Amino acid sequence: MNMNELIIKKRDGGRLNEKEIRYFVEGYTGGVIPDYQASALLMAVYFNGLDHDETVIMTKVMRDSGDVVNLSEIPGIKVDKHSTGGVGDKTTLIAGPLTAACGVPVAKMSGRGLGFTGGTVDKLESIRGFRTAVDEDDFHSQIKEIGIAVTGQTAHVAPADKKIYALRDVTGTVDCLGLIASSVMSKKLASGSDAILLDVKCGDGAFMEDIESAEELAKLMCEIGNADGKPTAAVITDMNQPLGNAVGNSLEVIEAVETLKGRGPEDITELSVFLAGCMIFLGGKARSREDGVRMAREALNSGRGLSKLEEMIGRQGGDTGVISDYSLFGEALCRADLVADASLAGYIYQIKARTIGIASQQLGAGRTRKEDSVDMNAGIYLHKKVGDEVREGDVIATLYSDDEEKLKAGLEKASSAFVISTEPAARPEVIKKVIGI
Amino acid sequence: MNMNELIIKKRDGGRLNEKEIRYFVEGYTGGVIPDYQASALLMAVYFNGLDHDETVIMTKVMRDSGDVVNLSEIPGIKVDKHSTGGVGDKTTLIAGPLTAACGVPVAKMSGRGLGFTGGTVDKLESIRGFRTAVDEDDFHSQIKEIGIAVTGQTAHVAPADKKIYALRDVTGTVDCLGLIASSVMSKKLASGSDAILLDVKCGDGAFMEDIESAEELAKLMCEIGNADGKPTAAVITDMNQPLGNAVGNSLEVIEAVETLKGRGPEDITELSVFLAGCMIFLGGKARSREDGVRMAREALNSGRGLSKLEEMIGRQGGDTGVISDYSLFGEALCRADLVADASLAGYIYQIKARTIGIASQQLGAGRTRKEDSVDMNAGIYLHKKVGDEVREGDVIATLYSDDEEKLKAGLEKASSAFVISTEPAARPEVIKKVIGI
Repeated sequence: MNMNELIIKKRDGGRLNEKEIRYFVEGYTGGVIPDYQASALLMAVYFNGLDHDETVIMTKVMRDSGDVVNLSEIPGIKVDKHSTGGVGDKTTLIAGPLTAACGVPVAKMSGRGLGFTGGTVDKLESIRGFRTAVDEDDFHSQIKEIGIAVTGQTAHVAPADKKIYALRDVTGTVDCLGLIASSVMSKKLASGSDAILLDVKCGDGAFMEDIESAEELAKLMCEIGNADGKPTAAVITDMNQPLGNAVGNSLEVIEAVETLKGRGPEDITELSVFLAGCMIFLGGKARSREDGVRMAREALNSGRGLSKLEEMIGRQGGDTGVISDYSLFGEALCRADLVADASLAGYIYQIKARTIGIASQQLGAGRTRKEDSVDMNAGIYLHKKVGDEVREGDVIATLYSDDEEKLKAGLEKASSAFVISTEPAARPEVIKKVIGI
Repeated sequence: MNMNELIIKKRDGGRLNEKEIRYFVEGYTGGVIPDYQASALLMAVYFNGLDHDETVIMTKVMRDSGDVVNLSEIPGIKVDKHSTGGVGDKTTLIAGPLTAACGVPVAKMSGRGLGFTGGTVDKLESIRGFRTAVDEDDFHSQIKEIGIAVTGQTAHVAPADKKIYALRDVTGTVDCLGLIASSVMSKKLASGSDAILLDVKCGDGAFMEDIESAEELAKLMCEIGNADGKPTAAVITDMNQPLGNAVGNSLEVIEAVETLKGRGPEDITELSVFLAGCMIFLGGKARSREDGVRMAREALNSGRGLSKLEEMIGRQGGDTGVISDYSLFGEALCRADLVADASLAGYIYQIKARTIGIASQQLGAGRTRKEDSVDMNAGIYLHKKVGDEVREGDVIATLYSDDEEKLKAGLEKASSAFVISTEPAARPEVIKKVIGI
C-alpha cells in the first residue's frame, strides 16, 4: 500500500476500507508513516469526513493499538462516564461517588488536562497525598472493596489515539465529527467498563457549538459503543456558561464537596444527580432512569455520596481532612475581584465558557504545554451566572493566582466573557437532551 | 503568528495575506514550521484554493527565497521556455537552438527529472562529456558568444519551491492550480530571463487533463509573469499521446537531432518550430508571431539550428560526433518489440501518455527516487501514433532496457497504453491554443 495514494483516495472523496485504515493507524503509530503524510490525510478527512463504517473501523483499530483493560473479575456492571470537555466540569467527583454509593462499581481512568483547567486527575492531586497512579491490582481491589477508584490513564490505552490527537491538535484537524467520535470511543472501549455514559457538551466552550451537531456526535458515539456490545447512552448538556460557580483545580474539588453536602450550585447539583441516575440505571441497579435519579438524589441527601468520596480519598492516600477543612488546600497568593462597571450592568445573557477557560488558563490553572505544571489554587469563582441581575459595583467574579501579572491578564480576559442584556434573561436548562436511555 | 491558526483560517475558507504567506514560506523553508503543519496547510489549500492575489504573493515570496539570477549584462532580450511536463518532450533541444540561431539569446536552466524520463539535463548527459554544471561566468560568456546555454538548476534558485514541491509530491497536494502556477513561476521569475514562453500540456499525461483547466493554468501563469514585468505567453499543447516517437534519454536526443536535420516526426517538428517562433517574437527579433515561426522554419531548413546545437554541445564539452554517428550513444543491452495481437488491431485512438511514461520509468529511463541513476539508453520508440492503422503482427513499438526483467515489466505496461478503435481515428492537433501572444 502507498500512503500518498491513500491520501489522494480520501482527498477525492473515496471510502477507506479496514485494510487501509489499519495501514494508516498502525503505520503512523509505529513510526513508519511520517507526521506530514498523517496530517495531510487528516486534513482530507476533515474536508470529506469519515462515514459510519469508517468511523467504527477507525475506533476499533485505535482501541486495539494498545492494552484493552480487563475488569471482568470485578463483580457487577462497571459503568464509565466521559465528558467531551467543558469549563468548570467537576461532575465526575460528584456523580462517581453517588453511583458507587448506590452499588454500581465505578472504574474511572481520567486524563490530565491540556487546556483550560487541569483534568479530573489534576483536580484530585490538589488534595495533599492523593495518589492518582495506582497499579492494576490495587485498582481492582479498591473497586471490589469500596466500589470506586479514579486514576490516571496509562500510556498503554489507545496509544494510536494519543499520537493522532497530538497531531490533530497542532494541524487544525480537531473539529471533525468522525475523528472526535473515534478518539473518545477508542479510549472508552479500551478501558474495560461494561457500559458507558457520555456527557456531550454543547455551546461556546465545547467542540460542538450547536445542539444539532452535538446530537449527531452523541448518536454516532452511542452507535459505536452499542455495536461493540457495550450499552452506551448520552446526555447533551449546556456549555454556554461554565458549569457551577468554580473554575480551577482545588476550587472545583471544594465545589464538588459542597455539592455532596447539599450546598452546591443548582446546575452542577442537577446535572451530577442526573448523570449518576443514568449510571445507576445502566449499571442495572435501578428499574428505570427515573428510579436511578431518585436513588442518586437519596444518596446525596443522606450524605452517603459524601462518605463515598471521603472513603475514596482516604483509600488513595489523600488527606480526608479536606472534607471539613478547606484551608488544607492552601490558598493562592493573589486574588482580585471583577467588579461590574456601567458596561457590565444589566442581566447576564451569556458567560462565554471558552473565554472563562482561557482566563483560567492564564491564571495558571491549566497547561499550555504538556510539561507545564498546574497551579492548584488558581482559578475563577463566579458570583453571578446567566439570568442574574448585575448592578454597577457588584462583584461578578473573584480570580485567584500565584502571580500578579497573571492575575491582571486573567482579569482582563474574564471581563470580556460576559454578555449583558438590558432585558431579563432566562436561566438555561443544563440538560438539553438524552439519547439512548 | 500561530501556524495552527493559519491552517484553520485557510481550512475555513479564509484568504491569507502577504504577511501570513511569508510566515509560512519562510518559516517552512527555514525549518521553523514542521513538515506536518505545512502539509496540513497545503491540503487545506488543495480544497479551498489560492485566489489570484494569494497566488501572486506565493510566487513572489518563493522567488525571493533564494538567488534571483541577474542576466542584465548579456545584451538582448533573453527568452526562457518552460514545459509543464509531458512524455517524450524534447522541444527544448530543438526550439532552443532554432531560437538562438535567429539571434535571440537562450539562457536555460533545466531541472533533472523525477518521474517518467530524465529531465532535459539528464537527456543532454547521454552525450559523452557534456557538462551541465556550468559556473555563472562561463554561463554568461557562453550565451554572449554562441547565444545559448542549457545547464542544471542550482539549489539556490527558489529553494522554498523545491522544499514545498517535495512535500506536495508525497502528500497528495500536487494537483492544485494555485500551487502549480506559483511553483512554476517562482522558478521562472528567479531565472533572470526577460520574457517567458510556457508550454502547458493538456491530456492524460499532464497535470491538466482538460483544455479548460489547462487554459486556466496558462492564463494565471501569464498574469503572474506579466505582473512581474516579464512578458509571458503560453501555448497549450496536446498530451493525449507522447510527443514524437522517442521516449527516453539518448533516444530523445537522437530524435531532436533528426528533427533539426528535417527528418523528425511531424508533431515534434511542428511544435518545436512554433515554440521557437514565439520565442523569437518575444525576443524582439520578429515583427509578428507568424514572422517568428517563418524565421524558425528557415533556421531549421537551412541547417542553422542543427549547427547551433552542435556548437552548444561542443562548447559544453560534449562529443559533437553524436550529430552524425548515433552509435556513439551506446546501446541498451536488451530490446523487444511490442507486436500487435488481435486486441491491438484497428486504428489507434489514444496512446495514454502517462502509461507510456510509467513503462519508460520501469525500463530504467526515469528515477523513482532522487538518488536513483538513469539508464541513458532505456526507453520506448513508437512506430505507430494516434490515427495510424494497426494490423495483427505489426510492430507498434520497440522497447530498450539494460535488464530483461525491466523489459518484461515495461512491455506489459506499454501494451496497456494503446486505445484501439475499429473506425479510422483523427490525428490530434498538437497546438490547441495560444495565449497572450
